[in-house]
Amino acid sequence: MIEENNEIILKNYRIKIQTGLLHQLEEFIKPLWSQRQVALITDDNVGPLYAATVEKQLNKMNYKVVVLTIPAGEASKSWRQVQRVIELLAQNNFVRSDGIIALGGGVVGDLAGFIASIYMRGISLIQIPTSLLAQVDSSVGGKTAIDLPAGKNMVGTFYQPDLVLIDSTTIKTLPKRMLVEGYGEIVKCAALVGGRFWAIVQRVNEPEDIIRQAEKLIYASVSFKAGVVQQDEKETGLRKLLNFGHTFGHAVELLEDGRLMHGEAVAIGMVHVMAVFEQKGMTVSGTTAAISERLERVGLPLDAPELGTPAFYRAIQHDKKIRGDQLTLVYVKKIGEPAFFPLKTAELKNWLGAAI
Amino acid sequence: MIEENNEIILKNYRIKIQTGLLHQLEEFIKPLWSQRQVALITDDNVGPLYAATVEKQLNKMNYKVVVLTIPAGEASKSWRQVQRVIELLAQNNFVRSDGIIALGGGVVGDLAGFIASIYMRGISLIQIPTSLLAQVDSSVGGKTAIDLPAGKNMVGTFYQPDLVLIDSTTIKTLPKRMLVEGYGEIVKCAALVGGRFWAIVQRVNEPEDIIRQAEKLIYASVSFKAGVVQQDEKETGLRKLLNFGHTFGHAVELLEDGRLMHGEAVAIGMVHVMAVFEQKGMTVSGTTAAISERLERVGLPLDAPELGTPAFYRAIQHDKKIRGDQLTLVYVKKIGEPAFFPLKTAELKNWLGAAI
Repeated sequence: MIEENNEIILKNYRIKIQTGLLHQLEEFIKPLWSQRQVALITDDNVGPLYAATVEKQLNKMNYKVVVLTIPAGEASKSWRQVQRVIELLAQNNFVRSDGIIALGGGVVGDLAGFIASIYMRGISLIQIPTSLLAQVDSSVGGKTAIDLPAGKNMVGTFYQPDLVLIDSTTIKTLPKRMLVEGYGEIVKCAALVGGRFWAIVQRVNEPEDIIRQAEKLIYASVSFKAGVVQQDEKETGLRKLLNFGHTFGHAVELLEDGRLMHGEAVAIGMVHVMAVFEQKGMTVSGTTAAISERLERVGLPLDAPELGTPAFYRAIQHDKKIRGDQLTLVYVKKIGEPAFFPLKTAELKNWLGAAI
Repeated sequence: MIEENNEIILKNYRIKIQTGLLHQLEEFIKPLWSQRQVALITDDNVGPLYAATVEKQLNKMNYKVVVLTIPAGEASKSWRQVQRVIELLAQNNFVRSDGIIALGGGVVGDLAGFIASIYMRGISLIQIPTSLLAQVDSSVGGKTAIDLPAGKNMVGTFYQPDLVLIDSTTIKTLPKRMLVEGYGEIVKCAALVGGRFWAIVQRVNEPEDIIRQAEKLIYASVSFKAGVVQQDEKETGLRKLLNFGHTFGHAVELLEDGRLMHGEAVAIGMVHVMAVFEQKGMTVSGTTAAISERLERVGLPLDAPELGTPAFYRAIQHDKKIRGDQLTLVYVKKIGEPAFFPLKTAELKNWLGAAI
């Protein structure tokens, strides 16, 4: 991995983070993509804000552009949208050498990425994430997914884009709740990394500070994540670090059935997994409070009624990251010092005891 | 690639070809797969013949087995079956570390392989191909697929199994037409390879000879295909060799809408692409006749009414293997000497002229 000029170069693609990038697409796309048809996949929230800007530049580069708009929201990560978009690609005679650009948040990125990975066994992909969560999380690492009734992200692929373009100015148009949920993932990364990254996070004491510090926060998060992913593309080892807060978080998110956003669920998951380890004396005293305080400052939730209920344990059993009957909890011994704690899924409830 | 004892070892998995293998599964699966749940995916033709044998051995190895049966036939390579099987996997709490075994012909292999590649972003897979076509063609190389109304194999992935087990005795229960269509792909490989392989093919003068020579024919085909695939997993260069007969063949197959089997379409495609190159003086005279004769001996069709019609050219334009407006025809200058001929898709009709 090479880092310079807010640009992170992974094995096969690069991630460019830059203010105003959305208006400078030609510089990055033109050298990469030969003449081709491009499907610009977006949703009905992001499309009206940015699709015309992107389309205009693509037309100027002489690509033939087809704009495909999906309904905004998690419900679009469905078989129905996969089939609908793929039918449209086929009707427009898209072939392997054409391309897909995903313009939107995590839903658009996950869905368009999944489609790109399976249409004709793989068509080129560029990610332009516009939500903070997608910028720091889902657009990096090549995970694509749709949901099943049985759980989120149960179907998907690992598929790397040719390029990820992150324009931090797009987060200014996000509803406050979406801005703040993206920041939940940033705090997760900062707690794992510590040092200078944790220091930057100390400057965020209200939601508006997220926008003020956006470029630094995004860059720190993405370079951490890219480094981890680079070393472990298929999530067999180190990449599990990124699951900090996710074992409890995913379960709560599933049970809240859409009422909690992903970054909110991760915030809750992080605080509670940390509380357990701190209570057991495996974490430096005060670490949980330090993390909670950062999350609380921007108004992230720290609690959910489902924690520790029978439904909560059942949801954890369905987590696709659990290898057979084993699960691995991620925690930090102190800020910047992550650790793994493996245990049998069946023993989780007993082990947690009254700690949750 | 290492070859010994009718065993071909690819980068990440091996292909074992052996008479009676279907009764010796433990020797190969047990060392490879830890304790896990196994979904045995088969169809309603193959299931009644072999599923019980396989299931019994898996039970003996202490795997928990779920048998999932799909309707036999190309129509099962559909979104509907993908969704149905995936729902069943989710209901049975399959996780990433469980496994799928595909027991059947190309349809079962393509569908189960696709499902394995996308369920939880990838679950372990073993292929046990039972049709001759699947044994020599679709089970090797990691291609998975389902069909769209717009064309065959329009959706899929590249996904390598852990193991491919080929028991040549299963082809004895194939309907003659399916036996013969598999042989069409074998003649394709033999014409590309020449030498000893082409000599073995001379021993096949009626369909029953295919069974007599099965092990040699399968081994020669698979080792050729594995060698090519090894060097070019994602079909960007050398792997295109395997498309010999497929550009015309796929188009005819699509237009015949299920009336032609894949191996039959490839036979027709091969003969006609060769006739063109021979007429243009680019192939040693008599090569087309030598190939036709091999195909005719077992009763493979050599002609289809759609060749050269406007619908035929339209179907070729939809071929996913065409990179933008370019296509590459594969032919042999003589037996054992393959060559590529690239041309613009738009110019194909003129270039073929009266030759087709």
